[in-house]
Amino acid sequence: MERQKAAVILIADGTEEMEFTITYDTLIRAGIDVVSVFVPEDSSAPHSVSPPIAKGSRGINIMPDSYLDRSQLSPDKYNLLVVPGGAKGADTISKNPIVKELVKEYYTAGKLLGFICNGSLTALTAGLPRQPLTSHPGVKSVLEKDFQYSEDPVVVSGNLITSRGPGTSFPFALTLVEKLLGRPKRAEIEKPMVFPENTPWVNAPTSK
Amino acid sequence: MERQKAAVILIADGTEEMEFTITYDTLIRAGIDVVSVFVPEDSSAPHSVSPPIAKGSRGINIMPDSYLDRSQLSPDKYNLLVVPGGAKGADTISKNPIVKELVKEYYTAGKLLGFICNGSLTALTAGLPRQPLTSHPGVKSVLEKDFQYSEDPVVVSGNLITSRGPGTSFPFALTLVEKLLGRPKRAEIEKPMVFPENTPWVNAPTSK
Repeated sequence: MERQKAAVILIADGTEEMEFTITYDTLIRAGIDVVSVFVPEDSSAPHSVSPPIAKGSRGINIMPDSYLDRSQLSPDKYNLLVVPGGAKGADTISKNPIVKELVKEYYTAGKLLGFICNGSLTALTAGLPRQPLTSHPGVKSVLEKDFQYSEDPVVVSGNLITSRGPGTSFPFALTLVEKLLGRPKRAEIEKPMVFPENTPWVNAPTSK
Repeated sequence: MERQKAAVILIADGTEEMEFTITYDTLIRAGIDVVSVFVPEDSSAPHSVSPPIAKGSRGINIMPDSYLDRSQLSPDKYNLLVVPGGAKGADTISKNPIVKELVKEYYTAGKLLGFICNGSLTALTAGLPRQPLTSHPGVKSVLEKDFQYSEDPVVVSGNLITSRGPGTSFPFALTLVEKLLGRPKRAEIEKPMVFPENTPWVNAPTSK
């Protein structure tokens, strides 16, 4: 039997809590093992802080499952690494030296990378090669020189999946499920989420 | 100048974290003052527990802003009370005696009530009068005898607003914003959330 798929979702103070929560919850609904990992603002600080709470961009306090520890986050152990947005949270995460190294390792190992909203800045800070990508419109100008910037809600470029904001978090998370577990699993978990009729990402054509 | 609008969102162990987070975050984006209030499983237990963490239905740990204390939650102080879903969370919240009293008070005072997913069970437990309502399909059979059951994504019945699940959380939250602050505010906050083109609830006709 195939090993259960596993995903890391990074979180920091200022992470957009809808983007974090929709992705985490949707992956769990698909039977993926998910761990949230706190990235400290001061990258030289001890990785384990107490109390261990991330304050979201709109003030929701989320307790992460664990703390940034490179030795625990090898691409051998995970199929996917996600960076959510939120201006301050994505700034902290995308500039963290351990995160930059991990992103390069995951990319080279052919593991999935999922960046949404300002989280797409991580493609730049980690030095990923020029390719199709999207982000929140607010950071388009920072990214369009180094990437083939797209305004599609979700952009799939090999193992790099990028997306735009809270409003695209559902199609982003469902695309990650589809890439890891296939289209039938995506369809299975869409149903009990009760999207309104004509929601454009439900029963959408298979992502390229 | 009009006083800032204020909302209470209830949360318990087992609350659906997407429904909670999307509603909270969207109301904050609209400039509404939001407080999350933890409802304990054992209604006879002290209202202040430590550590004060609600474990969501898919395992996300959220630290609520405060604890159920009827004296702090008078309808004089708030314009809206929200009950999110999640089977276990909504069971705890809808059966709590203080919640049932508060819901009756808010209803009588003409304040908004927002119930989503299994949170709609609260309309039954609090004894609200027969009227149009929706819920997660999983509890339709429990509600359809006592209410005019609808399968619309969001049902507005006077000051009772109900909705269906994670997939209807955005139109639910945006409808609450529209009812409290008007259509221009709703349109203003929709834009930076970057919904995909043709998302049915964006620039939707004004709710009845």
